[in-house]
Amino acid sequence: MSDAPVTTGRRARGGGGAARRAERTAISIETAKYIERNIPNYEVLTEEALQTIETNAETVLAEIGVNFVDNPAALERWRAAGAEIDGERVRIPRGLARKLCATAPSKFTQHARNPARNVEIGGNTLVLAPVYGPPFVRDVEGGRRYATIADFEKFVKLGYMSKWLHHSGGTVCEPTDIAVNKRHLDMLLAHMVYSDKPFMGAVTEPSRAQDSVEMCEILFGKEFVRDHTVMTSLININSPLTFDSTMMGALEVYAANNQASIISPFIVGGAMAPVSVAGTLTQTLAEVLAGVAYSQLVRPGSPAIFGTMVTSIDMNSGAPTFGTPEAEHITYGAGQLARRMGLPYRSAGSFCGSKLPDAQAGYETGSSLKMGLLSGVNFMLHACGWLEGGMVASFEKFVMDADQLGTLHHFARGVDLSENGQAMDAIAEVGPGGHYLGCAHTQANFKNAFWRTDLLDYKPFETWDEEGARDTQTLAAVRVKKMIDTYQQPPLDAEIETRLRAYVAAKKDSMPDAFG
Amino acid sequence: MSDAPVTTGRRARGGGGAARRAERTAISIETAKYIERNIPNYEVLTEEALQTIETNAETVLAEIGVNFVDNPAALERWRAAGAEIDGERVRIPRGLARKLCATAPSKFTQHARNPARNVEIGGNTLVLAPVYGPPFVRDVEGGRRYATIADFEKFVKLGYMSKWLHHSGGTVCEPTDIAVNKRHLDMLLAHMVYSDKPFMGAVTEPSRAQDSVEMCEILFGKEFVRDHTVMTSLININSPLTFDSTMMGALEVYAANNQASIISPFIVGGAMAPVSVAGTLTQTLAEVLAGVAYSQLVRPGSPAIFGTMVTSIDMNSGAPTFGTPEAEHITYGAGQLARRMGLPYRSAGSFCGSKLPDAQAGYETGSSLKMGLLSGVNFMLHACGWLEGGMVASFEKFVMDADQLGTLHHFARGVDLSENGQAMDAIAEVGPGGHYLGCAHTQANFKNAFWRTDLLDYKPFETWDEEGARDTQTLAAVRVKKMIDTYQQPPLDAEIETRLRAYVAAKKDSMPDAFG
Repeated sequence: MSDAPVTTGRRARGGGGAARRAERTAISIETAKYIERNIPNYEVLTEEALQTIETNAETVLAEIGVNFVDNPAALERWRAAGAEIDGERVRIPRGLARKLCATAPSKFTQHARNPARNVEIGGNTLVLAPVYGPPFVRDVEGGRRYATIADFEKFVKLGYMSKWLHHSGGTVCEPTDIAVNKRHLDMLLAHMVYSDKPFMGAVTEPSRAQDSVEMCEILFGKEFVRDHTVMTSLININSPLTFDSTMMGALEVYAANNQASIISPFIVGGAMAPVSVAGTLTQTLAEVLAGVAYSQLVRPGSPAIFGTMVTSIDMNSGAPTFGTPEAEHITYGAGQLARRMGLPYRSAGSFCGSKLPDAQAGYETGSSLKMGLLSGVNFMLHACGWLEGGMVASFEKFVMDADQLGTLHHFARGVDLSENGQAMDAIAEVGPGGHYLGCAHTQANFKNAFWRTDLLDYKPFETWDEEGARDTQTLAAVRVKKMIDTYQQPPLDAEIETRLRAYVAAKKDSMPDAFG
Repeated sequence: MSDAPVTTGRRARGGGGAARRAERTAISIETAKYIERNIPNYEVLTEEALQTIETNAETVLAEIGVNFVDNPAALERWRAAGAEIDGERVRIPRGLARKLCATAPSKFTQHARNPARNVEIGGNTLVLAPVYGPPFVRDVEGGRRYATIADFEKFVKLGYMSKWLHHSGGTVCEPTDIAVNKRHLDMLLAHMVYSDKPFMGAVTEPSRAQDSVEMCEILFGKEFVRDHTVMTSLININSPLTFDSTMMGALEVYAANNQASIISPFIVGGAMAPVSVAGTLTQTLAEVLAGVAYSQLVRPGSPAIFGTMVTSIDMNSGAPTFGTPEAEHITYGAGQLARRMGLPYRSAGSFCGSKLPDAQAGYETGSSLKMGLLSGVNFMLHACGWLEGGMVASFEKFVMDADQLGTLHHFARGVDLSENGQAMDAIAEVGPGGHYLGCAHTQANFKNAFWRTDLLDYKPFETWDEEGARDTQTLAAVRVKKMIDTYQQPPLDAEIETRLRAYVAAKKDSMPDAFG
């Protein structure tokens, strides 16, 4: 079973006596193993369509090219590799980018400080990580408000407690009460201390990427980080066809340290890419080819993920829209393109445009999550907690989505065709007009036969009515409180925690606050 | 385009002067054409798995058999066809049922009184029909209550006004204020008078099926009904493996009149079928093989649909659960089995277990609707309005779901790989760092590029907040009212309407009320 529970049974690296004592008293938090698909992917594009898009992407790279802005070193790397440089424009001869991409691994392990939480990214796996980037948070009690570090830490704790979530993520929300140039330190510290799941590094400045590496060296040990991937970070492309020096600087740090990067256009279709599906796929492929190739110019063999983050636009209001069929076409198509490149694929998430965790949020998210599974996504950022087009991280929606992620685990199992799965004895035992509730096969199998929610309402109407006729948001608010109330910090070597906190304090003291 | 709007531009059959006058003043109601898929289906089962299930289903028919209850004529038909009869048990030799099924058409036309609303059922089409059977209705104003004929008529009007809905359905809710033995007459009258979309016939007694045929003869003309399919009706199998005389009696009437039947097990997995996916598929296939074969024994060539209506069960509460991964496996797998039989496929719908049209309803329904499209369903009953495990027809959810059905139309279009779709000129025009909002390609294509909701919230946060921070249910309640307020009856020949009303009145007068 791909979703067999994994418990925190193993000792944190370098743990001393204190860690061992902490461990013995800690309650066991159940986390499912990352998903291994035993099902086919859905492929919306024909072979001919894929070839057309691939040819067109090469044409874009060769004839239009991409811009590497404020980055002479990048231009020099490209020139040396055989590209044509014209100012900041890089024109890449047909086939060159794809050839460079070939050294990127098709699958890699991202290590967690608790080895039982390591994840494999690529091939038939799916790793689920929470929402990334919202400046606001929302809950039933406090409404919509700017996010703080306290909110951030609460989300990290919820993520740690969420059975179907494999990854602690990165900027789960923006802690706006901390200076922009320092908040990455507090965020990383929270992931490292309050969770033992894998996490993401900072990308907002190359120096912050370097800080991330150094904090990992404290957590994992210098030698371990040199030889293992311990972060997967999000490198956005400035679509169309532009690579800015901030993001590329972070990519350079991570690639040089053999840490993984998601190379990802963020596209609102009709604004940053053509208003058509095939056009957007062409541009996406050209951008990812150039970005992943560049990561391999920095360090051949460094892990890189084919990222696609696409929404459509409401041409009436200009608002990005989510869970729409055109974005789904793109997500399915990009998955096919990624597999043809032999690269891990990142896309999809708990996308919705709704302001509340209401039915709209459910329709849009339900459809997007299932699409993520069927399109072959290997790393799903934003898998829970996304609200209002990504402007808001919602506490209630976080646990609602996290519960739904269980359906992906169960669907990915595929269909059991064993003799027990075929159940011919049961059909013979029950016969015409009987019922299966009491039969031997049902008794032997019912506990694991069907996915069961930990949140949604399955009660008889009368019971539900007597209990206050609660909607999903209300049930979720109860669950958030319960999870936070029962949270216990996973064991961490006291000396490591002290060194991490000292590093963060020293770094913060070394520079003035910067906002905005 | 498969979703080009079709308007009520054509004259009702047999229309006289009054109808023509009515037509000239009627407002034009836009209805999308039934979906024609330009996308592949998702196939969860391997060839080997399919063969195993098919072999097992034949074993079930040959060794266990099925019961045809209180139906000596059916037993006689089976005996004549070569089955082994033992009491009410019918054991069907391997291959016989499948051979009999071969005369059922792979695709047929169901005619509507407005020919522009005719639907093709089978092959690559998807026809969408509303919820069927709930004894209760719910709306924001009145809460949950027993359904009445007034509710029924309101749903028929909403269905007529719903752009993405192709079919008026059948028992959209149970009009519990009308006697059980008479309500089919009022329901059929409502479909015939308040809508011009195709509809379903009564199945609760063979005599009521006969009434349905006779009312169609008034609406369409006797000769037309003799030569055309004008009803698609729902024949449920009493799983496991039992065919009762009520449903079979209705099937016999419809098949004899060349009217279409959906032959459909209704299965709560773990109760009416084994608790495993492969076991449920085996039983489903055996039941459908026997049911469709029987329809062909009554009249070879009569239209029959491979039906599958499967949910899982919550083993804690015994409640049926919806939108679960195991039910999805079954729906995908049954689609593959139906296509291998060359039969149209009925499954999926706006399934949810939620008591309210909240986030749970959205998650479960959003996932189920998309599954219906990708599993190759040709006739989707319950495509909108389903709530509380089918106990409730919700007015707000009806319009919410009906809006979502637009996403299925757009997804089914597939990806446009024309020169315009490839958009290479646009990519060249905009170039690195530009934006697409004003470019020629965007201007030429934006109106039809992306699906757009008629209901959900895409507004800026501030606008939404000022307008009362409405959730989806609240927006839907506004839309229900607006649709009903602007409803206009489609034109119908006055003489036909008079004859229909006279038929209903005479039938109702001819018998005492029966309840329960």
